[in-house]
Amino acid sequence: MKSREIRLVRHFTGPVKPDYFELAEVELPEPGAGEVRVRNAFLSVDPYMRGRMIGVKTYVDPFQPGQPMDGGAVGQVVDSKADGFAPGDWVMSMHGWREGYTAPAAGLMKIDASLLPAQAYLGIAGMPGLTAYAGLKRMIGLKEGETLWMSAGAGAVGTAGIQFAKAMGAHVIATAGGPDKTAFCRSIGADAVVDYKAESDLAGALRAAAKPFGGIDAYYENVGGDHLQAALDVIKPFGRIAACGMIARYNDDTPAPGPSNLTQIVAKKLTIRGFIVTDHFDMQGEFIADLSRWIGAGQVRLHDTVYEGIERTPDAFMGLFTGANTGKMLVKL
Amino acid sequence: MKSREIRLVRHFTGPVKPDYFELAEVELPEPGAGEVRVRNAFLSVDPYMRGRMIGVKTYVDPFQPGQPMDGGAVGQVVDSKADGFAPGDWVMSMHGWREGYTAPAAGLMKIDASLLPAQAYLGIAGMPGLTAYAGLKRMIGLKEGETLWMSAGAGAVGTAGIQFAKAMGAHVIATAGGPDKTAFCRSIGADAVVDYKAESDLAGALRAAAKPFGGIDAYYENVGGDHLQAALDVIKPFGRIAACGMIARYNDDTPAPGPSNLTQIVAKKLTIRGFIVTDHFDMQGEFIADLSRWIGAGQVRLHDTVYEGIERTPDAFMGLFTGANTGKMLVKL
Repeated sequence: MKSREIRLVRHFTGPVKPDYFELAEVELPEPGAGEVRVRNAFLSVDPYMRGRMIGVKTYVDPFQPGQPMDGGAVGQVVDSKADGFAPGDWVMSMHGWREGYTAPAAGLMKIDASLLPAQAYLGIAGMPGLTAYAGLKRMIGLKEGETLWMSAGAGAVGTAGIQFAKAMGAHVIATAGGPDKTAFCRSIGADAVVDYKAESDLAGALRAAAKPFGGIDAYYENVGGDHLQAALDVIKPFGRIAACGMIARYNDDTPAPGPSNLTQIVAKKLTIRGFIVTDHFDMQGEFIADLSRWIGAGQVRLHDTVYEGIERTPDAFMGLFTGANTGKMLVKL
Repeated sequence: MKSREIRLVRHFTGPVKPDYFELAEVELPEPGAGEVRVRNAFLSVDPYMRGRMIGVKTYVDPFQPGQPMDGGAVGQVVDSKADGFAPGDWVMSMHGWREGYTAPAAGLMKIDASLLPAQAYLGIAGMPGLTAYAGLKRMIGLKEGETLWMSAGAGAVGTAGIQFAKAMGAHVIATAGGPDKTAFCRSIGADAVVDYKAESDLAGALRAAAKPFGGIDAYYENVGGDHLQAALDVIKPFGRIAACGMIARYNDDTPAPGPSNLTQIVAKKLTIRGFIVTDHFDMQGEFIADLSRWIGAGQVRLHDTVYEGIERTPDAFMGLFTGANTGKMLVKL
C-alpha cells in the first residue's frame, strides 16, 4: 500500500512559503505484531505546528527536515495485527500530513464515528474544542451572565469558544476579519461581532459592542499584538485573560514589541493565564459530557473548512495565517 | 496651630520636577465634635502617588492642583474632641504631605508605637509590607524551597519581599541598581543579587544567578520594561508573576512598547496577576501575626531611608524614581 506524505524541506522563520514543503511517496510496510496499517480520511492543520517548523525546541520538539510532519489525523484501519483493532475501525492519531501509516496500535485512540462524524474528533470534540473548553472553564472560570470577548472567533478554537460560552450562559463579543467571518460568528451565536480589519479603533469598537452587556469581564486571547493591547484597554477591573495562542506573532522574523499598556495589568488587577491544552487532558471526560449535552440540545454544531487532497495540505496550513478558514481547517483525503 | 503643607501646582506627565510642588502654610482649626488635631511625625512617599499627579482617574482619584496632596502619615494627637483619642496617642492617616491636620477621628487608625516604632506602620508593617506579603502569599503562592526573583529589591516593597520570602523558606534572587543597593539586598538576606545597571544581558545574569537553585519559579514585578522581558525569558514553565507596579513606566511621556516575548506566556503556561494592596486588607490579621513572629525571631528587620523636614518631601518623592532610597522612603518632621 502506497502513501503520499508532506515533508518539511527546511526550518524557517518569517512567512510560510510553499517551497518549504515537498510531496513524497512511500510504501507502507505490512503491520508487525501489535501494529496496524491505517488509511487516513482527514488531516488536521493547526497554528501550533508553525512553532515546530522553526527548528528550536519550544513546548514541542521541532519537525525534522526530510521527514514527514506529524499532526492530528483520523482514519480507518486497513490491516491489523493488534488485539482490539479490526479493519474498518476508526482511529485518531498524530500521524497526519500523510495518506496512511503503519504504526503500533498502542499509540492510537479508537473513536466512535457513529456518535459524531469522525472529523469532529479533530475539531470541536478534539484538541481545538478542549482548548476552548479548558480556557473558558479552568483558566477564565467563565460564569453565567458574564461577557466574554472571543478573539479569532471564526477559527477552530473561536468557533468552539463562541458556542461553548453561549451554552454556559455568557454573552459573547467576537472579533473576526472581514464580512464573511463576522457573519459566520453571528450565525453561530455571538451576541455582537467586531470586524477588526474594518476598525481603526479596535478598543473603541469593542467598548461600544460590549456596552449593552455592561462591559467585558474576560478575554480569550488567540491573537496577540493589537488585540491584546485593546483587551488591556477595555477589560473591566479584575478581568481574566486566557491565552492559548498569539497567532499574529508566529510568523515574525524578529520579535515585535508588545502592547504599550501593560501597566493596566496592575491598575485593573488583571489575571493573565497562558496554557497549552496538553496539560488539561484530565478535563476530557467532563468536556465530552458537556459537549454531548450541548450538541444534543442543538446549542453546539460542527463547522469546518475542508480542503481536498494530500497535496493541498500546505495550502490549508498557510491558509490559517491568512484567515482562509471558518471553523476548523481540515484536509479530506 | 500652624501647619506647612506641600501642594500640587499642576498636573503633568513625564519626569517629576520640583516646580510642580509648592510649600504653603495654613492655620489648623480647633477640633470640632468627633475630631482630633494631629501633629505628623513621619510622612510616606510612594510610587503610586505618581499616577495621581497626571490628572486622569486611574484606580485612585487624581490630586487637585492648589490642594495639599494625600499620603500615608503617622503622628500624635495634640487635641481631641473624639472618644477614645487622647493627646499623645499615635495615629496613622492618609493626611500626609503636611505637618498636621484637623480631621474626624473616624478616618484614623490608632497604632501601638510600643510594639514597633511608629514609622514601621508606613513601611514594613504598613502598605509596602502588606503589598509584599499579599503578592508572595496570595498572588504567587510562594512555597518553601522555591526560587523567587524580587525586582527593585532595595525598595520598600522589595526590602519587605526579600525578608518575607526568606522567612517563608524560599530562595531569593534580587535585582537592584548599583553597588550600594546590591550590597544592601545581600545584607538583608538575598541569596544572590544582580546589579541590573551593570548587566548588558539581564536575562543571562539572572539565569546564572538562579542556576544553583534550579531556576526561577516566581517573579515579583515592580519594574516593567526590560525586567518583565527578562522574567518571561528566564522563568520556568508554570511560573507565576505577581505585578504590583511597573515603576520604570510611570514617568513615560508617551507609553513605551512592552516586551517582545509575550508569547512566552503561552509557551511556558505562565500566570500573571496584577493587584493593588487595597483589595487585600482582609489579610491584615494574618500578616501582622506572621510579621510579629518573624521580627521576634530576628528574621525580619526595619530598613528606612529618612529625609528630614516637610520642605524635602518633593525631593524624597522624586528620589523614588532615581533610586535614592534603600528600604522605605520616609520624611521625618
